Amino acid sequence: MTYCVGLLLDNGLVFMSDTRTNAGFDNFSRTRKMFSWDVPGERHITLMTAGNLATTQALVSLIEERVKAADDRDPSILRAPSMFQIARLVGSTLKEVIADSAPIGPRGDASSFQATVIVGGQVKGSPPTMFMIYPEGNFIEVTAETPFFQIGETKYGRPILVRAYDSHMSFGDAVKLLLVSFDSTTASNLSVGPPFDLMVYKNDTFMPEVELRIEEDDPVYESISNGWGNALRTAFEQLPTYDLKA
Amino acid sequence: MTYCVGLLLDNGLVFMSDTRTNAGFDNFSRTRKMFSWDVPGERHITLMTAGNLATTQALVSLIEERVKAADDRDPSILRAPSMFQIARLVGSTLKEVIADSAPIGPRGDASSFQATVIVGGQVKGSPPTMFMIYPEGNFIEVTAETPFFQIGETKYGRPILVRAYDSHMSFGDAVKLLLVSFDSTTASNLSVGPPFDLMVYKNDTFMPEVELRIEEDDPVYESISNGWGNALRTAFEQLPTYDLKA
Repeated sequence: MTYCVGLLLDNGLVFMSDTRTNAGFDNFSRTRKMFSWDVPGERHITLMTAGNLATTQALVSLIEERVKAADDRDPSILRAPSMFQIARLVGSTLKEVIADSAPIGPRGDASSFQATVIVGGQVKGSPPTMFMIYPEGNFIEVTAETPFFQIGETKYGRPILVRAYDSHMSFGDAVKLLLVSFDSTTASNLSVGPPFDLMVYKNDTFMPEVELRIEEDDPVYESISNGWGNALRTAFEQLPTYDLKA
Repeated sequence: MTYCVGLLLDNGLVFMSDTRTNAGFDNFSRTRKMFSWDVPGERHITLMTAGNLATTQALVSLIEERVKAADDRDPSILRAPSMFQIARLVGSTLKEVIADSAPIGPRGDASSFQATVIVGGQVKGSPPTMFMIYPEGNFIEVTAETPFFQIGETKYGRPILVRAYDSHMSFGDAVKLLLVSFDSTTASNLSVGPPFDLMVYKNDTFMPEVELRIEEDDPVYESISNGWGNALRTAFEQLPTYDLKA
């Protein structure tokens, strides 16, 4: 499993992904699920993946090859004219990879090769935006009403996002919010785990603002993780008790 | 979908279930998912169901019929000598109902007829206990290490249970905890909704301590639901912000 979240803020975009991958319970390892490309001064793209690792690695390799190819027979996300066209390119590449893996014949079922992608960033001339791309290759765009996307193991970490997200929040508070959401998820699902990759993109900079890996022993993450349990219990105690004698 | 939770406390057992049932998004209705049987002074049994409504209704009807039958050809949960034997009876009845619905033939797949059950209570001579029963008819018992069971849409409401559950807590606090957990779930999943059925069983009383339906406009539920959002945001603000310049 996997957990990735992308947030749209007034000031920019914040992405976080975990790094755990597993096949069964006894085959764990670490893998990067966040990738980014920049053309300084012109575009920034961040992509996060969830799903079958063979599919997501093939997707990223194909995108990379097309970025590096000198000729332009193949379309590249570095030349696409907008984030929308980048999402279309990523979507069609994802669909192609999944179709390649599907068993042949009438009972072919590609479901176990599926993957989901979040891609966001900014191309000069348009505001920053973000898309969630489905295994079928189609996608939805982030809006003020749906200001964040989650992929992978999305449920445990969702309540705090719903309650505490605010488009005006600072990047520091957004990272705190994501760490709380990731902490709730890792506490409940063994297949999601630190370290976490973080990418912060500030509007109209066309380069990463902050890009770092937050390790399990990061002191701020530790204090957030430990502090959150206490803060939740304090918050809980302040609520009225249900009076059963009433 | 459904959400039901059973808690084992030092003082007794607390059960809560939602009441929403649906077939698709345009066919919603209310149904009871909590059932109880008492032999005053001798035993108390509470049962909650999640899964296919035809299966769970047939299960409860079969149990009811066997309770009411004058002869004893059929085993009744009111005559079983222990909670363990009651769980066996419920498990074998559940398995029988699911098998009845399964399509015939080698490709028979009963998965869409599945259901899961929590059954708890006390039979005189033994301490109170609780079991979670799987569609296959087998089951697990609650322990000090696993002091609560959830069935249905379990993920959204789990983080707060993990953080705030305490076996010493009063019945009033336990109900508050369950309402917070149910509130987090209803906020994220349309197929779980109020009113909520509550059953509180106090050790060695062999009768319900409190049995009531908490409506959506219940003033305490409303204040918990509204207060929890504020309390979460306050708790969140008290955590250290992640300093991205460090």
